[in-house]
Amino acid sequence: MDVDYGFVLSLINMNKGVINLKKPSIKDVAKKAGVSPTTVSRYLNNRGYISEKTRNAISQAMKEINYYPNEVARSLYTNKTNLVGLIFPTTNNPFFGELIYYIEEALYQRNMKALVCNSINNVEVEKDYINMLHANRVDGIIIGSHNMLLEDYKTPNLPIVAVDKPVDYDIPNVSCDNYGGTVMAVNELLKKGCKKIVFISGKRLESSYEDDREKAYIDVMEKLQRKPKILEVPFSDSPAEKERKVRKLLITNRDIDGICTSDDMLAATVIRISMELGIRIPEDLKVIGFDGTETVLSFMPFLTTIKQPIKEIAYKAVDILIHEIEHKERKAMEINFPVTLIKGKTI
Amino acid sequence: MDVDYGFVLSLINMNKGVINLKKPSIKDVAKKAGVSPTTVSRYLNNRGYISEKTRNAISQAMKEINYYPNEVARSLYTNKTNLVGLIFPTTNNPFFGELIYYIEEALYQRNMKALVCNSINNVEVEKDYINMLHANRVDGIIIGSHNMLLEDYKTPNLPIVAVDKPVDYDIPNVSCDNYGGTVMAVNELLKKGCKKIVFISGKRLESSYEDDREKAYIDVMEKLQRKPKILEVPFSDSPAEKERKVRKLLITNRDIDGICTSDDMLAATVIRISMELGIRIPEDLKVIGFDGTETVLSFMPFLTTIKQPIKEIAYKAVDILIHEIEHKERKAMEINFPVTLIKGKTI
Repeated sequence: MDVDYGFVLSLINMNKGVINLKKPSIKDVAKKAGVSPTTVSRYLNNRGYISEKTRNAISQAMKEINYYPNEVARSLYTNKTNLVGLIFPTTNNPFFGELIYYIEEALYQRNMKALVCNSINNVEVEKDYINMLHANRVDGIIIGSHNMLLEDYKTPNLPIVAVDKPVDYDIPNVSCDNYGGTVMAVNELLKKGCKKIVFISGKRLESSYEDDREKAYIDVMEKLQRKPKILEVPFSDSPAEKERKVRKLLITNRDIDGICTSDDMLAATVIRISMELGIRIPEDLKVIGFDGTETVLSFMPFLTTIKQPIKEIAYKAVDILIHEIEHKERKAMEINFPVTLIKGKTI
Repeated sequence: MDVDYGFVLSLINMNKGVINLKKPSIKDVAKKAGVSPTTVSRYLNNRGYISEKTRNAISQAMKEINYYPNEVARSLYTNKTNLVGLIFPTTNNPFFGELIYYIEEALYQRNMKALVCNSINNVEVEKDYINMLHANRVDGIIIGSHNMLLEDYKTPNLPIVAVDKPVDYDIPNVSCDNYGGTVMAVNELLKKGCKKIVFISGKRLESSYEDDREKAYIDVMEKLQRKPKILEVPFSDSPAEKERKVRKLLITNRDIDGICTSDDMLAATVIRISMELGIRIPEDLKVIGFDGTETVLSFMPFLTTIKQPIKEIAYKAVDILIHEIEHKERKAMEINFPVTLIKGKTI
């Protein structure tokens, strides 16, 4: 019944011709239009009188040879590049993918473009990128990755906004209500009668700042005079390492009946390992995640989670950054958007 | 048992102080170092004799006031920006998120940076971005989005590589073996005894090119003298519209026993709607996806799918682009990497 198909590497070099690549210059435009390079330059900079006929010839020549006026040169004059650097751990994650998407959408509406940098949670990569962004004269930076020693971001030269997690109290921060969202999550588990609730934290910060989600869990536990139990599964761990840690927790603590995770990827890992171990969800174990991205809700519509208003966070961060750029001043502030509970079937 | 928490918008403007933002200039460096701006300029451009003492003073001044040499100005001289434009529909999708991540990683190793543009599958947005990339003098472009009229990409001015799907036979293309992968997927369904196999296509291309995945399905069906049935669910449809189309297909064609989708997001939609309708997978209906990203396999480890070697595709595309940039020539070629079958539990 099978149709034959050889599964070998099909590497076909069609080699149907070679095209020589060359960026056209003002000289090429001048030659094509039959005028001097100075005239083209005057046309581009809107200086001095140029006849209608010459204008048309230059415009036509530019079109024909695909000449684009050089924004790089222009930006030296205006001291504005309309570029914004985004420093994030990775695009390869539903939460950051969605956040970057909406930041870029908001910037585009303001006629600005994004330079996206994936720091891969590596301090050296992040340092390289921040130097590159400075050197390329971006108009501002939006940070969603926080490995850098704080002083590297504190230079007063550049408009800057942090999203998701705070970098420093001097830098404006836009995020969801991380503290309130986690209290909401733990309360849902308590309502369902969970006796032993564990928090799994995908720690990302190499900073002295407390993690609001972790803090909220600890506060609730202490208020109830229960002993908090936290499993740390750093964001930078490999998928195999994350699985190993979660498996060990579930095998060695059979009395756990509620798990609250700091992101949905971790909730997915818990659910997967539970299935493997024959732990029934939600009968034996209740699980609640955090983030509620479009991608995760599409793959796991059954997941109970705390949904962040990602689009609102993105738009607000861009608003604040543009205010900094236009007014050349930075105001310390912290904006926390409310979250919502998505009622799935895992608690 | 609940801990009280008021779920109101907590918008706290800490307003702990205002910082004035100003980019330092060569003049500021000169003033700080106690030398003339010309001397600083000579230092930066490595021209003429400057004493050890003056060098140290300038270097120290640059550090103290956070002055970064202007790459924008430098790029005008070298005619090289070390920037590569990436045009993709969106970062908000596991496949593109992972592909962009690895492209950026490969570029970073070559000392180049990415300008990521999300075209949102909108022709106007894509046109704006391509103009912006030209104007910002990127060294090259990697395209994974193909709304543009072909001629817009065919300008011989710029090094360019297409990934995932071909743009034009003149432009090098790197993708997985889309045709072979789909033949593999349909064969798996045939092996399991499926009698009525439907292909669900998340069409992205606004081009005259045939979709290799769709074509492979049609070829196999015709070889077996079966009537092909294709449901088109464009990539740009809203999630609700995609669900509506899939639901209608499943309700009105109860005899379908095998579904092959052109991406995993569509497979996830089919599985979700099937669960709702009480259609058992794999007993009543077998489903096989395409792409096999790390994110999807983490959320749906039970999915049977065709896995693309995304990292290899990314690295090869960057290799080819850098060859074009360095040799100032473009060779037409098509490189198809082999795919692998991930045996899950959905067929």
